Amino acid sequence: MSQPPIPFFQDIVRQAIAEDLTFGDITTSALFPEPHQARASIVARHPMVVAGLAVAREVFLTVDPSLTVRCPIRDGQSVRGSTTVLVAAGDGRSLLMAERVALNFLQRLSGIATLTREFCLAVKGFPTRILDTRKTTPGLRVLEKWAVRLGGGHNHRITLADGLLIKDNHLALIRAEGDTLRDACLRARSAGPHGIRIIVETQTLADVKQAVDGKADVILLDNMSPSHVRMAVELIKDKALIEVSGGITLTNARDMAQAGAKFLSIGALTHSAPAADLSMDLVSAGRQRGSRHI
Amino acid sequence: MSQPPIPFFQDIVRQAIAEDLTFGDITTSALFPEPHQARASIVARHPMVVAGLAVAREVFLTVDPSLTVRCPIRDGQSVRGSTTVLVAAGDGRSLLMAERVALNFLQRLSGIATLTREFCLAVKGFPTRILDTRKTTPGLRVLEKWAVRLGGGHNHRITLADGLLIKDNHLALIRAEGDTLRDACLRARSAGPHGIRIIVETQTLADVKQAVDGKADVILLDNMSPSHVRMAVELIKDKALIEVSGGITLTNARDMAQAGAKFLSIGALTHSAPAADLSMDLVSAGRQRGSRHI
Amino acid sequence: MSQPPIPFFQDIVRQAIAEDLTFGDITTSALFPEPHQARASIVARHPMVVAGLAVAREVFLTVDPSLTVRCPIRDGQSVRGSTTVLVAAGDGRSLLMAERVALNFLQRLSGIATLTREFCLAVKGFPTRILDTRKTTPGLRVLEKWAVRLGGGHNHRITLADGLLIKDNHLALIRAEGDTLRDACLRARSAGPHGIRIIVETQTLADVKQAVDGKADVILLDNMSPSHVRMAVELIKDKALIEVSGGITLTNARDMAQAGAKFLSIGALTHSAPAADLSMDLVSAGRQRGSRHI
Amino acid sequence: MSQPPIPFFQDIVRQAIAEDLTFGDITTSALFPEPHQARASIVARHPMVVAGLAVAREVFLTVDPSLTVRCPIRDGQSVRGSTTVLVAAGDGRSLLMAERVALNFLQRLSGIATLTREFCLAVKGFPTRILDTRKTTPGLRVLEKWAVRLGGGHNHRITLADGLLIKDNHLALIRAEGDTLRDACLRARSAGPHGIRIIVETQTLADVKQAVDGKADVILLDNMSPSHVRMAVELIKDKALIEVSGGITLTNARDMAQAGAKFLSIGALTHSAPAADLSMDLVSAGRQRGSRHI
Amino acid sequence: MSQPPIPFFQDIVRQAIAEDLTFGDITTSALFPEPHQARASIVARHPMVVAGLAVAREVFLTVDPSLTVRCPIRDGQSVRGSTTVLVAAGDGRSLLMAERVALNFLQRLSGIATLTREFCLAVKGFPTRILDTRKTTPGLRVLEKWAVRLGGGHNHRITLADGLLIKDNHLALIRAEGDTLRDACLRARSAGPHGIRIIVETQTLADVKQAVDGKADVILLDNMSPSHVRMAVELIKDKALIEVSGGITLTNARDMAQAGAKFLSIGALTHSAPAADLSMDLVSAGRQRGSRHI
Amino acid sequence: MSQPPIPFFQDIVRQAIAEDLTFGDITTSALFPEPHQARASIVARHPMVVAGLAVAREVFLTVDPSLTVRCPIRDGQSVRGSTTVLVAAGDGRSLLMAERVALNFLQRLSGIATLTREFCLAVKGFPTRILDTRKTTPGLRVLEKWAVRLGGGHNHRITLADGLLIKDNHLALIRAEGDTLRDACLRARSAGPHGIRIIVETQTLADVKQAVDGKADVILLDNMSPSHVRMAVELIKDKALIEVSGGITLTNARDMAQAGAKFLSIGALTHSAPAADLSMDLVSAGRQRGSRHI
Repeated sequence: MSQPPIPFFQDIVRQAIAEDLTFGDITTSALFPEPHQARASIVARHPMVVAGLAVAREVFLTVDPSLTVRCPIRDGQSVRGSTTVLVAAGDGRSLLMAERVALNFLQRLSGIATLTREFCLAVKGFPTRILDTRKTTPGLRVLEKWAVRLGGGHNHRITLADGLLIKDNHLALIRAEGDTLRDACLRARSAGPHGIRIIVETQTLADVKQAVDGKADVILLDNMSPSHVRMAVELIKDKALIEVSGGITLTNARDMAQAGAKFLSIGALTHSAPAADLSMDLVSAGRQRGSRHI
Repeated sequence: MSQPPIPFFQDIVRQAIAEDLTFGDITTSALFPEPHQARASIVARHPMVVAGLAVAREVFLTVDPSLTVRCPIRDGQSVRGSTTVLVAAGDGRSLLMAERVALNFLQRLSGIATLTREFCLAVKGFPTRILDTRKTTPGLRVLEKWAVRLGGGHNHRITLADGLLIKDNHLALIRAEGDTLRDACLRARSAGPHGIRIIVETQTLADVKQAVDGKADVILLDNMSPSHVRMAVELIKDKALIEVSGGITLTNARDMAQAGAKFLSIGALTHSAPAADLSMDLVSAGRQRGSRHI
Repeated sequence: MSQPPIPFFQDIVRQAIAEDLTFGDITTSALFPEPHQARASIVARHPMVVAGLAVAREVFLTVDPSLTVRCPIRDGQSVRGSTTVLVAAGDGRSLLMAERVALNFLQRLSGIATLTREFCLAVKGFPTRILDTRKTTPGLRVLEKWAVRLGGGHNHRITLADGLLIKDNHLALIRAEGDTLRDACLRARSAGPHGIRIIVETQTLADVKQAVDGKADVILLDNMSPSHVRMAVELIKDKALIEVSGGITLTNARDMAQAGAKFLSIGALTHSAPAADLSMDLVSAGRQRGSRHI
Repeated sequence: MSQPPIPFFQDIVRQAIAEDLTFGDITTSALFPEPHQARASIVARHPMVVAGLAVAREVFLTVDPSLTVRCPIRDGQSVRGSTTVLVAAGDGRSLLMAERVALNFLQRLSGIATLTREFCLAVKGFPTRILDTRKTTPGLRVLEKWAVRLGGGHNHRITLADGLLIKDNHLALIRAEGDTLRDACLRARSAGPHGIRIIVETQTLADVKQAVDGKADVILLDNMSPSHVRMAVELIKDKALIEVSGGITLTNARDMAQAGAKFLSIGALTHSAPAADLSMDLVSAGRQRGSRHI
Repeated sequence: MSQPPIPFFQDIVRQAIAEDLTFGDITTSALFPEPHQARASIVARHPMVVAGLAVAREVFLTVDPSLTVRCPIRDGQSVRGSTTVLVAAGDGRSLLMAERVALNFLQRLSGIATLTREFCLAVKGFPTRILDTRKTTPGLRVLEKWAVRLGGGHNHRITLADGLLIKDNHLALIRAEGDTLRDACLRARSAGPHGIRIIVETQTLADVKQAVDGKADVILLDNMSPSHVRMAVELIKDKALIEVSGGITLTNARDMAQAGAKFLSIGALTHSAPAADLSMDLVSAGRQRGSRHI
Repeated sequence: MSQPPIPFFQDIVRQAIAEDLTFGDITTSALFPEPHQARASIVARHPMVVAGLAVAREVFLTVDPSLTVRCPIRDGQSVRGSTTVLVAAGDGRSLLMAERVALNFLQRLSGIATLTREFCLAVKGFPTRILDTRKTTPGLRVLEKWAVRLGGGHNHRITLADGLLIKDNHLALIRAEGDTLRDACLRARSAGPHGIRIIVETQTLADVKQAVDGKADVILLDNMSPSHVRMAVELIKDKALIEVSGGITLTNARDMAQAGAKFLSIGALTHSAPAADLSMDLVSAGRQRGSRHI
């Protein structure tokens, strides 16, 4: 199972468990004073790209390190409905306590990966990449961006320190200082850190022209129609890479790709992907095995 | 502006800012070596119930305590499109650094409040409450449940320690131990903590009968059709409160209310509400005011 | 050994160790530059209900994961004086470093469990439960409430979010707003969350009558004498459960039970239980085994 | 009001509030949807040395920074019963939410200060200091040691890094290595850090003789009777300072002082001081003042 | 005073204070039971570029928010010896408690800024930038990189997520997989995130040739002599930017600039800058002002 | 491998990793989508006292618990140049991610240990101890003081709570209150905690005389020449221990020892030790072993 590529995602898991379990699980404690061996299966209820198994596994093991967890499916794999994606076994009380938190991660991350995959399929055949944005859920950015990659997308900036992107609100101030979009690009080039490309957001073809003059590395065409995108592409030629954003849907994504967009950046991947539907089924493994609970 | 009813929501704000700004904002630093006074307006782009202004305000003040923030709108208020909901003023660099995190909170919480309001309207005229569930975004539970209340809904359990709810997976183990749903209710009554009602999930009318025998305080009818709900209601009479969950949509909610459901608990309120659309407009306040930045 | 029913009690252990050991143990370091294999026994010095072994074990293993720890006694068990309750073995330097913190937890939690057991014995034969309160030591609430359960008691509210209890200071404001105790009960019923019982504190029989009218689920009789309790019981009959608090001692607890109290809630369980007396005896295990210290 | 002499005692306050209020106060929220101006008085119910006002004040201000708090009494002051020690004013909902946590700190810290004062009075007239030990409540050490000072006592070691104290369990290993108590003192002297006195625990007069030979700075007489203490004092003369510990009570403390103990170290100060009794009275300040709550 | 460009540098300050003051300052407490108004001046003892005043100010205000702090000098300014750079006033006890931590930050950060300035002067007249590396002190990276900028340098990567730099150890694995440096560049280009330049480390001219073929954006010449650098520059022409690292000293930096290096990256800036010498002078402000200490 | 003598040094390791890896390593992820077994050797590039292996090991295991790490050298051992001090094996991607952080700890701590050893050698033959100061790097105090011990030095105060040291700035206030250095010693003796020696800083022989009269345990001679030290030594005789600080270099340390200094305390040990030079060499272990990465 591939890990989320960050060393401390366990902290996010602990925090999510704390929200649910800080003061214990009174139902489980009241019903089951003694251990009860059981097996839990997490099942995808419809076709989806599964994402978050490594996180769900961590949830189970954080609640109870004596559980065993295995995943017949890999993060990033597409599955049909009714597929078992994770099996956990051990004290049923621990399985009951971990259930909701594990599912909450899986439903959100799989939802994102599934929507990303749909966008990738929409532009299939074109050399166009699907990118996420910083419109992520507070606290979950690194996991959501991992889900985008599992779905086949690529990541745009993770933080405000790893990319130099001049947006409309920067330009509002730049212009109030008497400078132009082109000047902004040059300012950024001279003062920006080492090894970073300059990306600039444009609203009009005039903006695009200035961005080319300012030697931007990437020109972002914001909220343009496919035909405007096509005009901008002709203007830019190979002087910069072309990114399109704003109002991109599963319906118009292919048109944008056809118009020449090298990158489509889509906020909805992370802010509006509907939750994937997964559930947990618990079966008793009998009590005869002995109840060697710690 | 009503506060989120928890003392430490600032910790969630700090964490969200850390995701974006831990290593600074290289674009803003490169473009603006000096302060530039400005005013930012956050605008709702379509009709919505606004939720999260108290949080967005905290984002701005955490990034820069010298900013001033005021909100012409109250959390929980319904607005039309193109309504300004928050105005922040001060060093434009701080406004640029806070923008995305503030919007990320508002778009998510307002999305939840707006969907909740729609469900409340769907059951208008009936004494039926709209409830959330524990299917919340990891890390944001208390804020999301606050948004549900702002939308007119009520909260179900916050953590596993504040309600005693016997679900299908508990019953799977109970039955494997040779006991019945009714026994589970009695076990819970005798071992559970002080001052908690017993809620039990039922799938069939036979379950419902056992729940009544077990003197459950609330009987949850899971995934039943309105006509099944009606039969259950007749069976239960006033021996318990009636909650319905599973597959409730804006289309069938009214039928459930009509069938006699006192509570509708709906996971989609928090796991699948689409983001509300809000954006930030920045205007320069001129540099003549002097640039008394710290 | 039964675990404290919270996933993160280790954080409390780490914090306690940090208070003592953040900057190391200069005595042990100065005396023993090399490992010295040893065995430590923690001994109860008088009859008590032992509580906190799972926590003490965590202290030893946090200080040094290579120690081995076993407990001949279970948390919640009554022991005579001079009983060994925990044995730890390994590098004697680690045992010396862990000693005080492990004992500090055991002496406090066992003190609470022991006092709780005494109250339980005082009401033996009556269907009366001994409850704790929120008068706990800052930072140790979940552990202290666990100790109460180990002693045979039951838990009242853990936090202010898991029970709806209207107290004298709430009523002071309610009355200033022109409403009555009965009105307070009704307000709470209509605005309170799902699945929570209403508990109301009463000082007089007039209060009790209003509480019955307000359909409170539990009526708390505060600081009443056994004879007053008896009158209240007659008034309430089976319209509500009856809880008694205020000035309950080992001497009068049985009278209260006899008078009809279903629950006795007692702050002293957690705020004034004297420490149980336990100590640690260390013996060298010789150095011949080799000193394979990490 | 004198501050606890540590910069981060607020962290302990926040943690205590988190235990009680992490998920809000459902009673107050249900009863009072709007602010209600009020005034709270915290009253000592019996004679005591008050300790913890600075902490209680921090509790109120952390729950709601808009409250005003003043203290007619100083930390460390002795008061009669029925004395108001702290007055807080503002939104009554905030006062209700802060009440229990503020009282929990005050009852514990005042209990410790009061017991310490009693021991100080017991040895009045002798040049004998009352010392605490490391037998403190996990998580509260610095506050409890502050309470001891407020009661007139002095502090022994705070952590294992700020004093070199050779105890019985160290000696068990030293002897197993073939060395004597005297050797232990010399080892400690040569390897210990700069600027630390050597204290050594002794059980017999033979031990005392070795400690003198080892040039210990302080000799601790453990669990000796006053007459044994007297013999040890004669043996030691002015070659070391004399500390007595083990089984010291309000009854025998004066005898120990008379026998020549310079220091009495007493675990019960912090592990078994009964809680002081303080309570909070709330009165409405009327609603006519307007309800300008944030 | 320009702020460190990160929102949470206060956390680093708190941690540094915790190292020194967690258990209070026993000297100051023993000597001064009452407040004593005083004024402290921090003085640069030799010529230096001052860096860290914003941090030192935070130290004083965290120890005691009632202190007043002003800085006659700005961070990044060059000063002669014997220059007062910060003045703090208030309770002298707080000034004594903050002294060492404030100086520890200033001496380190000013040391870095001063050394950076010397390198900048060494390449004056050439369009060559002085860059830092990731060879920073654990825990202080963002502050040390801020000090480099204050000294006139530029920042290389802050974290492993904001730059794509292929180093010798990456190439060791790449080659073991049967690929070349050129292949590594192409792999990085196709799989790397959006908006990042490819930097590749080279040891030989053959490497340089492959880097050019792989269309690296920046070619890093590692441990080459100025004459080798010159040869590499001719080979690369304007097909990539040229960075030089390894063994750069104040003596040879100018030669490297002359040889055509656009960037010099120097680990010693952060790992071996000697501490700048600053000290604090305290003077009493008299006690007549009243000692209204909290 | 001897452990740093503090239980929570892992927290410092985690924080250092977080600075570098919070958002992943984009280079390694882009180049190596699959695991690649490898072996890394950390090599000392010049003669040094190695310090920090236990910390570097923790870095590797925190980044990837499945790595294996062994150290042919012990912390505190002197090595020649080109000595392998640590070998780590496992997934090469993890080795690449841990490299810089591991080296950053080793280069700093070994630098300190090496400089300390040089000072120890300078005073060889005299009964003089080399001491550190509190002039440490913020956040690294306990590790830096451990490195001093590994180099053969001794530790002065760790925090402001474990030693009573009266410095020039304390005396400035003492004198403003009309008291003398001698009075300060007496004040400290009567109010200071149990078991602490009084150290006092002196600038002149007059100061020294007062310190003797005040019965200081240790007299610190600040910034005195060897001949002044000699005069002070005669004055003090064996009435106190003698510590010298201020301007001590490898050149004059022996003179100070000869003049009679029992302790030399040297800030440069921790604030200005140049980084030791260590580097990591990575070799592929082939892919044929299978790539059973998690």
